Amino acid sequence: MSIVLVARNRNMEPFREEILKQDANAEVEIWPAVSQPQRVQFAVAWNHPEGVLDQFPNLKAVSSLGAGVDHILSDATLPESVRITRIVAPSLSDQMSDYILTSVLNLMRHSEYYFRMHRNSEWSPQRSLSKTEITIGIMGLGKLGVHAASRLRDNGFRVTGWARSPKELDGVRTYTQNQLEDFLNQTNILVCLLPLTPETNGILNLELFKKLKKPSFLINVARGQHLIEEDLIYALDTGQISHAVLDVFEKEPLPENHPFWNRKTITITPHVASVTDPAEAAAVIAENYKRLLSGMDLLYETDRASGY
Amino acid sequence: MSIVLVARNRNMEPFREEILKQDANAEVEIWPAVSQPQRVQFAVAWNHPEGVLDQFPNLKAVSSLGAGVDHILSDATLPESVRITRIVAPSLSDQMSDYILTSVLNLMRHSEYYFRMHRNSEWSPQRSLSKTEITIGIMGLGKLGVHAASRLRDNGFRVTGWARSPKELDGVRTYTQNQLEDFLNQTNILVCLLPLTPETNGILNLELFKKLKKPSFLINVARGQHLIEEDLIYALDTGQISHAVLDVFEKEPLPENHPFWNRKTITITPHVASVTDPAEAAAVIAENYKRLLSGMDLLYETDRASGY
Repeated sequence: MSIVLVARNRNMEPFREEILKQDANAEVEIWPAVSQPQRVQFAVAWNHPEGVLDQFPNLKAVSSLGAGVDHILSDATLPESVRITRIVAPSLSDQMSDYILTSVLNLMRHSEYYFRMHRNSEWSPQRSLSKTEITIGIMGLGKLGVHAASRLRDNGFRVTGWARSPKELDGVRTYTQNQLEDFLNQTNILVCLLPLTPETNGILNLELFKKLKKPSFLINVARGQHLIEEDLIYALDTGQISHAVLDVFEKEPLPENHPFWNRKTITITPHVASVTDPAEAAAVIAENYKRLLSGMDLLYETDRASGY
Repeated sequence: MSIVLVARNRNMEPFREEILKQDANAEVEIWPAVSQPQRVQFAVAWNHPEGVLDQFPNLKAVSSLGAGVDHILSDATLPESVRITRIVAPSLSDQMSDYILTSVLNLMRHSEYYFRMHRNSEWSPQRSLSKTEITIGIMGLGKLGVHAASRLRDNGFRVTGWARSPKELDGVRTYTQNQLEDFLNQTNILVCLLPLTPETNGILNLELFKKLKKPSFLINVARGQHLIEEDLIYALDTGQISHAVLDVFEKEPLPENHPFWNRKTITITPHVASVTDPAEAAAVIAENYKRLLSGMDLLYETDRASGY
């Protein structure tokens, strides 16, 4: 019985150490240095190369290292019988809400403009947008979406939310599936926190951008695949959208010659909105490993049909 | 009986219009075009040239256009009998708290670093500071300080406060006058929201910076005169302070050849943290004018001895 940690371009040693703090008897190995592949029953994966999980014949469950499971679901080699779960941790939601709050405030207060003026030694006050003239619309009201909507609301913003199934949230007007157009028509700052599924892939496209209220802004903190990148460039260059803040991209790291880098109307951060803390993740991983071994329900298990 | 609006480099017409909306019978003139100086009983002033208020022989009260009254108190030509008041408005506090929250989040999340990396098309993730490893210390617990401390606390930050007289605030550890050193020793991010008085002039100096906890940061949103500018440059260049965010300066606009412009370790905004809204200000001005004419107490009157 063992756990394997499978990730590309990420140091997994801190996660191994934290899992051992939770359960000193656990066997934890870091791919590719796996001594006994047949002992692996539980894998923790982040952007794993497709097919790698194949080498563990007794694999029973895979946990994402983050909140999204799309990178696991998209691995066609993974047997249907393998259960899929993920990390839900207070600091993941808190960091995400902080990132969105920071982005919203920077947009309204022209922070990036002032950074540029600094380079020119130029003193040039601009009128900030006020909270009364802006509505923030959150797409996706899962754990992260509800947390972000509540935080923005508590900071005095007018917030709405859109989700596939009906949701209720104090002080936040919510819309469901077939009310997308109404939702967009009221939204100035659109925040994407959707899970990535076949239905949401490419949802951030020109047709959608045109329905936003002006001035319009986009914040994408979900997945790069939600966005049709060339549509965003067109929308920015034609003034349909004033500015976009992107933390996720179709290809990461964002290639050096990507047209996004040449645009002042895009704020780029290198997938840092919410970063899994090893200690917090280890608590969830150790708990789910224990549950798996004793045949109990897993925490945060994904419904394969809905994709989240 | 009339009101005069006296300001340099600022369009006062919107304020005149809003005051007339509040009180259609008020006489409001904008300096220097004052037709009957002897009719002026109430002045609203922002960085007025010293001596200008002298030309109104029947002046009874002066209101600052903002939260600070230092620019009125420092006018030696103003008779002792003239009462001094100011604008306290919900949006002034809210804007100020937003500015401080934005600055804190940008410091912790390296926003300015990512803006610079954008110019180089460089993808370079950095570890954010977490809320558990940082204490924010607010100097000055007046209306703005209490509002900011509460907002930061509600957003999950560890916050302390320092004020001349003892103050109590839920979930915020407070220090008084003679506990300044204890307060500084616990503080990573120091926020100055003090009134400008002879005691606080130059309080942000090298001796104080050395007492801060590392990593140390400074946010000054009060007055440029609180800061010894050459001490800040020394503290930044020697690593005593990692980064400073400044919205106010000894001389504004900040001169083009000022050494602050050449430092990446300083974020400069052109005195925009909190901007008085004409409609909100007019409500306070009209109310105080009415109170003055009917001999009532003024709202937010300044105690000349304490200077705030």
